[in-house]
Amino acid sequence: MAKITSVSPLAPAAFPDLPVIKGVRFATVAAGVRYQGRTDVMLAHLAPGSSVAGVFTRSATRAAPVLDCQAKIGRAGDEGAAIIVNSGNANAFTGRHGIESVRHITNAVATALDLPETRVFSSSTGVIGEPLAHNRITAKVDDLTRALDAGAIEAAARAIMTTDTFPKGSTTSVEIDGQTVQIAGIAKGSGMIEPDMGTMLVYIFTDARVELPVLQSMVSALNRQTFNCITVDSDTSTSDMVLVGATGASGVDITEHSIGFMEGLRRVMLDLAQQVVRDGEGATKLVEVSVTGAASDSDAHIHAKSIANSPLVKTAIAGEDPNWGRVVMAVGKSGARADRDTLSIWFGDIRVAENGWVSPDYNEEAAAAYMKNPELMIQVDLGLGGGTARVWTCDLTHGYIDINADYRS
Amino acid sequence: MAKITSVSPLAPAAFPDLPVIKGVRFATVAAGVRYQGRTDVMLAHLAPGSSVAGVFTRSATRAAPVLDCQAKIGRAGDEGAAIIVNSGNANAFTGRHGIESVRHITNAVATALDLPETRVFSSSTGVIGEPLAHNRITAKVDDLTRALDAGAIEAAARAIMTTDTFPKGSTTSVEIDGQTVQIAGIAKGSGMIEPDMGTMLVYIFTDARVELPVLQSMVSALNRQTFNCITVDSDTSTSDMVLVGATGASGVDITEHSIGFMEGLRRVMLDLAQQVVRDGEGATKLVEVSVTGAASDSDAHIHAKSIANSPLVKTAIAGEDPNWGRVVMAVGKSGARADRDTLSIWFGDIRVAENGWVSPDYNEEAAAAYMKNPELMIQVDLGLGGGTARVWTCDLTHGYIDINADYRS
Repeated sequence: MAKITSVSPLAPAAFPDLPVIKGVRFATVAAGVRYQGRTDVMLAHLAPGSSVAGVFTRSATRAAPVLDCQAKIGRAGDEGAAIIVNSGNANAFTGRHGIESVRHITNAVATALDLPETRVFSSSTGVIGEPLAHNRITAKVDDLTRALDAGAIEAAARAIMTTDTFPKGSTTSVEIDGQTVQIAGIAKGSGMIEPDMGTMLVYIFTDARVELPVLQSMVSALNRQTFNCITVDSDTSTSDMVLVGATGASGVDITEHSIGFMEGLRRVMLDLAQQVVRDGEGATKLVEVSVTGAASDSDAHIHAKSIANSPLVKTAIAGEDPNWGRVVMAVGKSGARADRDTLSIWFGDIRVAENGWVSPDYNEEAAAAYMKNPELMIQVDLGLGGGTARVWTCDLTHGYIDINADYRS
Repeated sequence: MAKITSVSPLAPAAFPDLPVIKGVRFATVAAGVRYQGRTDVMLAHLAPGSSVAGVFTRSATRAAPVLDCQAKIGRAGDEGAAIIVNSGNANAFTGRHGIESVRHITNAVATALDLPETRVFSSSTGVIGEPLAHNRITAKVDDLTRALDAGAIEAAARAIMTTDTFPKGSTTSVEIDGQTVQIAGIAKGSGMIEPDMGTMLVYIFTDARVELPVLQSMVSALNRQTFNCITVDSDTSTSDMVLVGATGASGVDITEHSIGFMEGLRRVMLDLAQQVVRDGEGATKLVEVSVTGAASDSDAHIHAKSIANSPLVKTAIAGEDPNWGRVVMAVGKSGARADRDTLSIWFGDIRVAENGWVSPDYNEEAAAAYMKNPELMIQVDLGLGGGTARVWTCDLTHGYIDINADYRS
């Protein structure tokens, strides 16, 4: 696989200053799973009383750790919890051996931290189809346990990177009845799936106290507006997951009616989702596709995804070409309701098409100048109803081909 | 748009020697619709008694000529028929003006050839969203009518090209009760949609006598096994169409039970479909994806298309990388039924994965050597049932980005 030496042009200027989330500690280690000379395993420990919620890839060929997490995620428990993640090997499509690897790893962590095995969640990201050398990980579990540190979240963000060109973190704080709740998260991913290196992984922590059913329903709902609204290449990993842990250490109780907390969690989830797109393989443009006037929200989402995944739209963006004919094409092929003669399209504030034809005041030079921006908005109004959706994507460039067409090294 | 100067490495050695189809005559002209110094309009005339059947893009934003053809295609008529096609401008997303352009052109042809307007079919291929200068075409209709010639089918294949790198033709003959029936066709297209140049167009002619309902049902059924089974980039044109004309001039009657004729028509349709993929933008590999053992034929088709459209599978093929993990990923994300632990995958004759893991006798060197072939077969067996499908695709290369990311000139 191509070695990525340069950082995405869309990367944030620096890793954000993440606060300590009371009740969570992190540790990382270089276990040599596949990479040499860097950390490749991270452990997070959540204090007793924490809730852990999650959402997972819907792939029919999902990896062994995903299946294991899914079996555990719904169960409440007051004993605390742990999350252990390795990079370099996805432990996906590895048959019975893969299940055994998960068992060895989660068992070692459970023993070291005195947790029930049902409270240990694991993820793996990297090559598909090769057996995971789980003994290299289990050999380091005692070191990890001893190194747990409330300030090590940035190190954790770095340990889970594969072909990512920058570590991804996000934070916000929310005032609830005069008290402050912190939310901080980390993510990895530079494609819905990357080269051999599958997977988007997201871990978010908060010191709020949130009952498991409330946390799970918030995470599921927000996931539909954030991570399920991004696409790099339309390919879906065998290993994607989002885990959210709430330690309760702030003493602030969150109920299903805590709009402020939900909005804070949404901000962190959306920021991390957009950072994954910013690190999309070969990306030079971050594009928001906004669809309004669709017959339903679901139709709007189908149109938006059709535009965001179209290779012809994405190559036009790479070429800084305001090629609105390709947007028309992508709407037409999506399968959702559309009427050519009520369709309007904007690039930024520039209306390029309305009522089924080019706008009378359309100025291609202005549109071409707009397309030179690194962050773009494509808006489509169907003129049919009240359905809306927003998704985020990136352009399709030579960089994507370079990264993905190179023979695995 | 990038100028394509070289012929696809997957092109046939030469344009085939197409026979005269009794009852059909062709003419071409340089009308200067957009291109200079080349023919850009073709006219085909079918003798009285001919049947014309067709299938069309399902895009919700389909072009004016497509809508016009669809309104006319089901009507029987003994007066003969005509097909007029221009390249350079797709007359798509052109509002009321587009409908007027179609009316002017079909009216001029109907008058010149003494046909009812309902028997004149038109297509346009090229830039989307610009008004078609239909007067340049109508000005040439008399010249076209005078030039009609039974031997001009290859010239017709050349006049309808846009970014195609080679003209596409195919022929076969079928023995029916000791008599010979000829079938010949031409096609254009090097993407389901190309740069600005939308569209796959296919015109097939036979001297068999086939009643319209029989011909239409044969064409619809065969379309599902041929043109609906190819993909270059998953993008669907606003203008795709396949028209099949049967003149009856051979005096041979074809009924719905003529398996031999149907098989001949299938061969020509499949050959033309594969030629479109061979001319796929930037293509260096022709890939057959064969899915067996699916829960149903429909599931098999969904899996096959998911593999054939995956950017990660297509870039791996471009890189000659036997990256079967990406095939697993594409099966997993397709939405159709799959069970990781009953999945087997072959590249050519090489079994790479079985029962949910890499094959014990898999040899990556042998697989890497196989991937160097210009024509490849990927086979997936789901191990679930009797559903099968075959689709054809090409690789995703720097050439695709070059062609599509260049600013329109």
